[in-house]
Amino acid sequence: MSSTKPASSTTGDPLLLTPGPLTTSRSVKEAMVHDWGSRDARFIAINRAVLETLPRVILGEGAFVAVPMQGSGTFAIEAMLTSFVPRDGKALVLVNGAYGRRARTILDIAGRASVVYETTEDVPPEPGEIDAMLAADAAITHVFIVHCETTSGIRNPVEAVAAVVERHGRRLLIDAMSAFGALELDAREVAFDAVAASSNKCLQGVPGLGFVLARKSALEATKGNATTLTLDLFDQHQALSSSGQYRFTPPIHVIAALHQALEEFWAEGGTAGRGRRYAENARILIQGMGRLGFRTLLPETLQAPIIVTFRTPEHERFVFQRFYDALRDRGFVIYPGKLTVADTFRVGCIGELHAADMAAFVAAVKDTLLEMGAGLRTAA
Amino acid sequence: MSSTKPASSTTGDPLLLTPGPLTTSRSVKEAMVHDWGSRDARFIAINRAVLETLPRVILGEGAFVAVPMQGSGTFAIEAMLTSFVPRDGKALVLVNGAYGRRARTILDIAGRASVVYETTEDVPPEPGEIDAMLAADAAITHVFIVHCETTSGIRNPVEAVAAVVERHGRRLLIDAMSAFGALELDAREVAFDAVAASSNKCLQGVPGLGFVLARKSALEATKGNATTLTLDLFDQHQALSSSGQYRFTPPIHVIAALHQALEEFWAEGGTAGRGRRYAENARILIQGMGRLGFRTLLPETLQAPIIVTFRTPEHERFVFQRFYDALRDRGFVIYPGKLTVADTFRVGCIGELHAADMAAFVAAVKDTLLEMGAGLRTAA
Ligand SMILES: Cc1ncc(COP(=O)(O)O)c(C=O)c1O
Ligand SMILES: Cc1ncc(COP(=O)(O)O)c(C=O)c1O
Repeated sequence: MSSTKPASSTTGDPLLLTPGPLTTSRSVKEAMVHDWGSRDARFIAINRAVLETLPRVILGEGAFVAVPMQGSGTFAIEAMLTSFVPRDGKALVLVNGAYGRRARTILDIAGRASVVYETTEDVPPEPGEIDAMLAADAAITHVFIVHCETTSGIRNPVEAVAAVVERHGRRLLIDAMSAFGALELDAREVAFDAVAASSNKCLQGVPGLGFVLARKSALEATKGNATTLTLDLFDQHQALSSSGQYRFTPPIHVIAALHQALEEFWAEGGTAGRGRRYAENARILIQGMGRLGFRTLLPETLQAPIIVTFRTPEHERFVFQRFYDALRDRGFVIYPGKLTVADTFRVGCIGELHAADMAAFVAAVKDTLLEMGAGLRTAA
Repeated sequence: MSSTKPASSTTGDPLLLTPGPLTTSRSVKEAMVHDWGSRDARFIAINRAVLETLPRVILGEGAFVAVPMQGSGTFAIEAMLTSFVPRDGKALVLVNGAYGRRARTILDIAGRASVVYETTEDVPPEPGEIDAMLAADAAITHVFIVHCETTSGIRNPVEAVAAVVERHGRRLLIDAMSAFGALELDAREVAFDAVAASSNKCLQGVPGLGFVLARKSALEATKGNATTLTLDLFDQHQALSSSGQYRFTPPIHVIAALHQALEEFWAEGGTAGRGRRYAENARILIQGMGRLGFRTLLPETLQAPIIVTFRTPEHERFVFQRFYDALRDRGFVIYPGKLTVADTFRVGCIGELHAADMAAFVAAVKDTLLEMGAGLRTAA
């Protein structure tokens, strides 16, 4: 498998080494070349299959339901926060990057009380610290954590945090946008009320749909909490479960693509299989870039195999925009950095990318450095 | 043109005689068979072209900007209402169907004061009545109207209402979801602050994107009004106009399809050309159905050439579900009724449908009636 060219390359598009939207298989894209009505039995069956299979990703069949949300991942996050945290609730938000900060903003706008525990972008939260904060503040009803903070690519300790939160009888809400389908999250072992993700990251669909997997009993209790009509998860779920139909027109083609993407996800062995391929992609990337003299921001123990942050080399002839453009011309799209702590850029390992693609990317980086006259120190 | 088979029929899907999502051209669907990053220069150019061309549809170049909203049409409506009506504002909502009622619900949830002027589903609002309501209540800041109320297919008198609202110095917000691109709306003649529509109705794209065309000066004044992060039109516009990039992942493939759809829209002659084709579709439909004994809910003067509501015949052998299924088997999807005033069903005239398709539909209805043994009174 790792030596085959990804099917998508036949569309002539550059490979996306980004945190999503990402390179998808040709079959996923072609699933969109149809017309369906939103009340069409064929579409309703496709949609039902998608919603029924999503809880399996977290081994949550029976206890969890998938509530789709038109829009993007942030729409699902705002829906989750404004539906689950009640008007008189209070959230503890764990922040070590842009997505934790965004959750805080959403809570502020919705008029929900919150308190932040912030660590720098290369440091995960300490469960002991959370334990102390929860012990000290009985008003905190919910804790929010980002599974893989895409800002740096760091893997946050969801399991350990969940254990602390459960011990205090509080509820955990997870943003697993970039981790869902690549990092294991076992709902039988890890206690949480809801996890949000989207169609266009590790599930390898196209963008346009977010979703929240919600613990049934917790979702029931959210009735009347929402601050909008469209982002009301309770109402969205009610309509879908009673009639099989959406309250508002769904992004039908995006859902058809996700349906195909999920078939390919299970065929690859689900989270275990996909996570293994991504881990191999990350290994080839980090080792190859290391040989060319690039250093990662994070130590191996904190690095999720999703997106890797590299420090921008200090070589005077290394100009990021030239580097980016030259790689683009060679068929690879990378991502600028988003960090406040250091000058960096990011390279994704997710999507329909295989070992041969990662090796080809490293070779393209090598050529680009030569062309720029910016050969870095070569490690032995 | 009218005798050619629509290109989409080559995908083997039934024709959608529905109010959208609707039958799209094959080229629109095929525009999605690519991968783009959301910061990709190719995508940014596609998106810019879409946003720049949309104000032209209302002849609003210069004065109006297009603010896209991920999600569906209702997300754009909720964004428009919660961004434009300030916390201390008050809206007069004109209701003669489900979409007017939905606007009222959105305002209630957002905690915005509102008052309703309701007429039955087959009756348009009276400008004189609105004049009196505005004169009597100085607290009303905004008036909300649905251009074509898709519940019945009625065309509401936007121009006359706009004149009254302007005379009172109040602001008009329009839901033109099902009318945009088919019924003329000339921003140079009709005074309004914002109009909302979506990708998947008369523009003939696929679902997944709503948008609001906003008068620049009015949009400026909405800063801080919004009740959510995602549905904040001011913030969405700020980010897009300063960086060309979305705050949150856009539905890239949906936007690429809309780009192609807009090219086809202009090639057909814009609103004038498309409106002409739809009017011809409606004429063939209404006349043909009339010959088979079906009666429309609305008189011709109130009927928009978008979707036609037919009264369910009282013939004892006419069973709607059988009728629907038989037409579905013949390759045509119609729509159930949504009215409270009468037992009805609806047939759309919009999408990539031409005269030959409408004639074929009428022939299929005739066959179906024969098969059901429910031949209706035949007019001379
Ligand atoms: C961890 C995380 N949360 C939220 C988001 C927001 O998702 P979207 O851009 O689809 O709104 C992202 C996007 O990259 C993400 O990585
Ligand atoms: C007039 C009108 N307004 C609003 C909507 C809602 O749009 P959506 O279903 O895309 O949310 C529709 C959909 O048919 C409509 O016809």
